[in-house]
Amino acid sequence: MERTTIAYDKLCAYMADMLEKGLKYPKESAEITAKALVEADARGHSSHGVARIKLYHDEVHDGRSHPEAVAEIVHETPVSLVIQGNAAPGFPVSRTAVDRTLEKAEASGICMTAVRDSCHFGMAGYWAEQIADRGMIGWVFTNTLRASIPTFGRERLLGTNPICVAVPIGRRPHFMLDMATTTVPLGKIEVAARRGGVMPVGWAVDVDGKDTTDAVSVAEANRFDKNPMGGQLFLGGATETLGGHKGYGLGLLVEIFTAGLSLGTASFDTYKEHCGICHYFQATRLDLFGDPERLRSHIAGMLDRIKNSRKAEGQERVYIHGEKEFERREKSLKEGVWLDPATWKRLDDYADLFKLERL
Amino acid sequence: MERTTIAYDKLCAYMADMLEKGLKYPKESAEITAKALVEADARGHSSHGVARIKLYHDEVHDGRSHPEAVAEIVHETPVSLVIQGNAAPGFPVSRTAVDRTLEKAEASGICMTAVRDSCHFGMAGYWAEQIADRGMIGWVFTNTLRASIPTFGRERLLGTNPICVAVPIGRRPHFMLDMATTTVPLGKIEVAARRGGVMPVGWAVDVDGKDTTDAVSVAEANRFDKNPMGGQLFLGGATETLGGHKGYGLGLLVEIFTAGLSLGTASFDTYKEHCGICHYFQATRLDLFGDPERLRSHIAGMLDRIKNSRKAEGQERVYIHGEKEFERREKSLKEGVWLDPATWKRLDDYADLFKLERL
Repeated sequence: MERTTIAYDKLCAYMADMLEKGLKYPKESAEITAKALVEADARGHSSHGVARIKLYHDEVHDGRSHPEAVAEIVHETPVSLVIQGNAAPGFPVSRTAVDRTLEKAEASGICMTAVRDSCHFGMAGYWAEQIADRGMIGWVFTNTLRASIPTFGRERLLGTNPICVAVPIGRRPHFMLDMATTTVPLGKIEVAARRGGVMPVGWAVDVDGKDTTDAVSVAEANRFDKNPMGGQLFLGGATETLGGHKGYGLGLLVEIFTAGLSLGTASFDTYKEHCGICHYFQATRLDLFGDPERLRSHIAGMLDRIKNSRKAEGQERVYIHGEKEFERREKSLKEGVWLDPATWKRLDDYADLFKLERL
Repeated sequence: MERTTIAYDKLCAYMADMLEKGLKYPKESAEITAKALVEADARGHSSHGVARIKLYHDEVHDGRSHPEAVAEIVHETPVSLVIQGNAAPGFPVSRTAVDRTLEKAEASGICMTAVRDSCHFGMAGYWAEQIADRGMIGWVFTNTLRASIPTFGRERLLGTNPICVAVPIGRRPHFMLDMATTTVPLGKIEVAARRGGVMPVGWAVDVDGKDTTDAVSVAEANRFDKNPMGGQLFLGGATETLGGHKGYGLGLLVEIFTAGLSLGTASFDTYKEHCGICHYFQATRLDLFGDPERLRSHIAGMLDRIKNSRKAEGQERVYIHGEKEFERREKSLKEGVWLDPATWKRLDDYADLFKLERL
């Protein structure tokens, strides 16, 4: 019988075991990483879920990620931190960064943290949400492998460079914007590649700079970095008419806050000796602006006005960011986490490789 | 002979006189406002330039802006401010906000300032640039009149809600991203309306939610707020396929930081009793992250790598945000500020209305 869903806790435990035994992650790092991956699948973002075991395996196998390494603070003030990841996996590095950021923000009202020499940290929203869970506004950026084309350029230089902002509003879900600055995250192109190979026009251009719907070619070009030309388009597309230069500007902004402020490597230089991925975390206490309860309910009221507004023809709902993922997660906790057939196969392949029992 | 350009200083002095005599702005407020407007024209952003005398006249004429009012601080901590604008014009309110923000950031490393009950403050970049001029990273957001449609909605509820970030890089121009979160700012639609009336598909939808190229109708619907349906599209367009929900999310984010954190009015409630416009300013000292000189040159190096990358077919240059405006400004300072015929006519109309000499 085809496998479809799996209990959240069981999948967490299985992935932690796989990371610990297969990739030699320390036990705590394996547990931190497993939970973050399963959370992505539970929210319907399979692009950042357990199927990415391949990426984390490649990082270690190629010597670009050192599972036993530990992140360290290299610069700090009462409101800021710079952290050197020492090529440890992105999840334990981010765990350290978020925990230290929250401590300083509790004391000073705000903390801004730039991180260099980390690895891929999964879904930005997972980290920002933890800041909002503590009643603070969370900002999280990260750069990535080189994936996208500057407006009027041809070379793949910048990352998909997500911007994530989580704002507590006194009820669940938080306002949670979590967006690649490209039209879609690379993971969505990988999912399209696994599920049939075709993607919409406007997501990427080929090596000649022409529109392409071939998800397999784009995903592979990026993964194996064969040709420096061609890649993903920024939000707004290839031209200035519909604002492609704005998406590109947001992408640059993320490079500046991650690689720039940490003195780390920009996306065009990542995945060389180390992963070299850079992050930025920020936590801001709401009471800097007045009574938190009043602020939360004022913001929630604004969002309600928008949710309750008239819908476009054929649409039943105006969403606030974070709702879809929150509802999908509730369902996954009740009914199990759904994994697509290609993801099940990938887990089996890696179980075989690591000589572990299949799930 | 048709008038085309005018000396920067002469235009500043003329506009200050017009604001002081025509709108009864206090002398200092008039000078602050005039300079900000002329700076927009000098950079080629006529959408935010002296032609907007109409908007500032309407604000005062309708009793929504009180030229003699003075902004006051209503909440503060060492790293934050909340400012009540008291319906004063947006430029002197922003002058106060930026000056107090810089003072606190000099002392504490960072200051975050939410402003409510202000009026339209012109081009966000003008304010962010002043923060970068002081060696700090500047963030500036503002909400606006209601102009844009949430993804899957039909009502015009959010503003064009610009995001502006200025980062000093040790040379001019700074990195200066200044973008409406809609495909284009409303001012660009107004310019299209003044210059012929046609705009590209993808900028706005009509009252039925259908694509429209009629700039005059959209500009007028917004200006006179006749029908609550129809309006501008967010960056990424009307659907999720190309990321319209991301532009909409950025728009929401700006409402939260401006109207939310200041307990002010969201764009769907602005221009009622008062203008009710809300802003957000942030200044961050670079030395929070290490040696500023090293950080600036690291960031400049990243940007140079991108500028020097291979160009798309038919393109001669990959731009960094801020370059176009900087170069246009240099030219305007040398050769005079260019104003289009419709703007010249508008200045004449208001000179006549105010019984002032024409420029």
